[in-house]
Amino acid sequence: MDKDGLILPKDFPELKNDTFLRAAQGEEIEHIPVWCMRQAGRYLPEFRESRAGKDFFETCRSPEACCELTLQPLRRFPFDAAIIFSDILVVPQAMGMEVQMSPGKGPTFPEPLKEPEDLQRLKTKVDVSSELDYVFKAITLTRHRIEGKVPLIGFTGAPWTLMSYMIEGGGSPTHSKAKRWLYRYPEASHKLLSQLTDVIVEYLLGQVKAGAQALQVFESHTGCLGPVEFKEFSLPYLRDIARRVKDKIKESGLDNVPMIVFAKDGHYGLEDLSESGYEVVGLDWTIDPRSARNSLSRCLQTPIRAGHILAALPTLPTSDSIHPFLYIYIYILSCLCFSVSGLEEKLVCKATWIPAHFMPQRSAYQRL
Amino acid sequence: MDKDGLILPKDFPELKNDTFLRAAQGEEIEHIPVWCMRQAGRYLPEFRESRAGKDFFETCRSPEACCELTLQPLRRFPFDAAIIFSDILVVPQAMGMEVQMSPGKGPTFPEPLKEPEDLQRLKTKVDVSSELDYVFKAITLTRHRIEGKVPLIGFTGAPWTLMSYMIEGGGSPTHSKAKRWLYRYPEASHKLLSQLTDVIVEYLLGQVKAGAQALQVFESHTGCLGPVEFKEFSLPYLRDIARRVKDKIKESGLDNVPMIVFAKDGHYGLEDLSESGYEVVGLDWTIDPRSARNSLSRCLQTPIRAGHILAALPTLPTSDSIHPFLYIYIYILSCLCFSVSGLEEKLVCKATWIPAHFMPQRSAYQRL
Repeated sequence: MDKDGLILPKDFPELKNDTFLRAAQGEEIEHIPVWCMRQAGRYLPEFRESRAGKDFFETCRSPEACCELTLQPLRRFPFDAAIIFSDILVVPQAMGMEVQMSPGKGPTFPEPLKEPEDLQRLKTKVDVSSELDYVFKAITLTRHRIEGKVPLIGFTGAPWTLMSYMIEGGGSPTHSKAKRWLYRYPEASHKLLSQLTDVIVEYLLGQVKAGAQALQVFESHTGCLGPVEFKEFSLPYLRDIARRVKDKIKESGLDNVPMIVFAKDGHYGLEDLSESGYEVVGLDWTIDPRSARNSLSRCLQTPIRAGHILAALPTLPTSDSIHPFLYIYIYILSCLCFSVSGLEEKLVCKATWIPAHFMPQRSAYQRL
Repeated sequence: MDKDGLILPKDFPELKNDTFLRAAQGEEIEHIPVWCMRQAGRYLPEFRESRAGKDFFETCRSPEACCELTLQPLRRFPFDAAIIFSDILVVPQAMGMEVQMSPGKGPTFPEPLKEPEDLQRLKTKVDVSSELDYVFKAITLTRHRIEGKVPLIGFTGAPWTLMSYMIEGGGSPTHSKAKRWLYRYPEASHKLLSQLTDVIVEYLLGQVKAGAQALQVFESHTGCLGPVEFKEFSLPYLRDIARRVKDKIKESGLDNVPMIVFAKDGHYGLEDLSESGYEVVGLDWTIDPRSARNSLSRCLQTPIRAGHILAALPTLPTSDSIHPFLYIYIYILSCLCFSVSGLEEKLVCKATWIPAHFMPQRSAYQRL
């Protein structure tokens, strides 16, 4: 970070479609913007070709590859925003933890945190600007190559979600090891969550500096917390991130960068989240968007239901001739499979719904 | 089932503690009853000894073993009810599907249902009374051996949960194959759900006939459904089960048998569930019991939070000297790990919370 605040590059192409950004700021819009979580759909043939034979995190560290994977779906679909291709686990890597992507198994930490003493293995001072430089470079490159068509969204995992990965050592259906920390080592848990928050704040500001025009924070593991644990171990850090990022942006005299918070399976926390400093609250597919609209005052982001897409397809395409729209929901599925279960590769035929961050359908998608 | 209705054995010992049954029926009670999901805590030393070297489903098929495993925790804790040791997957087995318990992996169907044609592999007419006779025998035996100390609860998996196991072939974080059926083959899905419902109704009535004094229906996979899918593929069958079981019991001139419905992660369906014909609605640990109490008119069943137990333990016991109360929450954990993730064996140290069906704490547990 520059000592004197954030300085944005001046030479990015002018933004042509700002519908997403205006919607997020609560302004009037002509159509409801649609975007898709993880731009780089794993089931696009061009995606598979680009990624073939390459290690997942090696790809994440290549700005050229991330840029290409981010842009691919935009060439097929008229989305209103793009999200940079990357992974939430780059943050634990930056803090000194090794993460491998095991085919068929998902992300794996060979040496997860087992006891509070293991916190000593983490870097005390993380040089975010150099450790995560590859993400920033990918954002800047993509921001240029996207040619102002749509805004570029940056993202991060939230502290509790990253903490649970670091302790579980990978995906987990129960997160029981990480929850054990919350109860058994509340102080160490708060210490780790604070360390993560510090890095995340720097990381998000670095993304803004590199050209990100909106930011999403993924709290993917809210479902294994209850309301009490959420209020103690998740919400305060989510709030802190929004406050610190926004303060710094304001202090630097820059325009506000809209932020989205998405706490998957955190139905019990939606009211708190809508008052936590984020412009947009993401809903998951267990939330009825109309009820949420009535009870929450924030801009809401909601997935398109798979039924809407499948109902529009007279017969489900085979993997050899996939209807373009199916790609949308398939690569969205793949994203959430990844973050929820840690599974890297899923067959096309396994994909059956849309656990994604779509804004509600705009006219172009009404027929779905 | 007897042609002329249900006939209960007359010679069961008289019930001494009917607090649970009265609470479930909405009657006045002196203390809030506590019970524990799956009586046979996997982490009780006596449980491990009883189960050592034996196949899981072989154990389920032994009335003597099920009775012993059901009674073990009652010898340690002053619970107000017991639940028969069994497994929800005995129903798919009765319908002709093979299910194995793979150590470290959980339940596995070597030949899961892949396409609607595979429904032909299921028995068209299931002779529940002979196929599941071993469960009925276990219930009758346990009802005798429990000596009237507390009532005995029978249980079943709900149709959607069993359907998803039968299609996924085991535990799954996303249930994507099963969800694919809902969208792609709605008719076949309803056919399968109806077939399951028919067997489940017979199965629950058989349990009552064998001596079960309350019945719980586990819809463990509600979290991967949204409100729309729930209303179409889960709720109607849950309602149908309650209606048909209660009608038959009434028709036979028997006393009402209280029924509990537990739809894990089905926060969006609680209002519907409270009007679905069950006396008790089970909450999961993401639901604030006080809010639920204010909005739902049914008797509620809620887990005790791990924090309450851990806060009472000055230091968390090691696996060599475990505080008795820890067993409670540990074996509860093991139960849900099983139904949620399909993992059969978990180490004691992994256990960190109570995803269980405890009624709210009664005085004996207030110190927790």
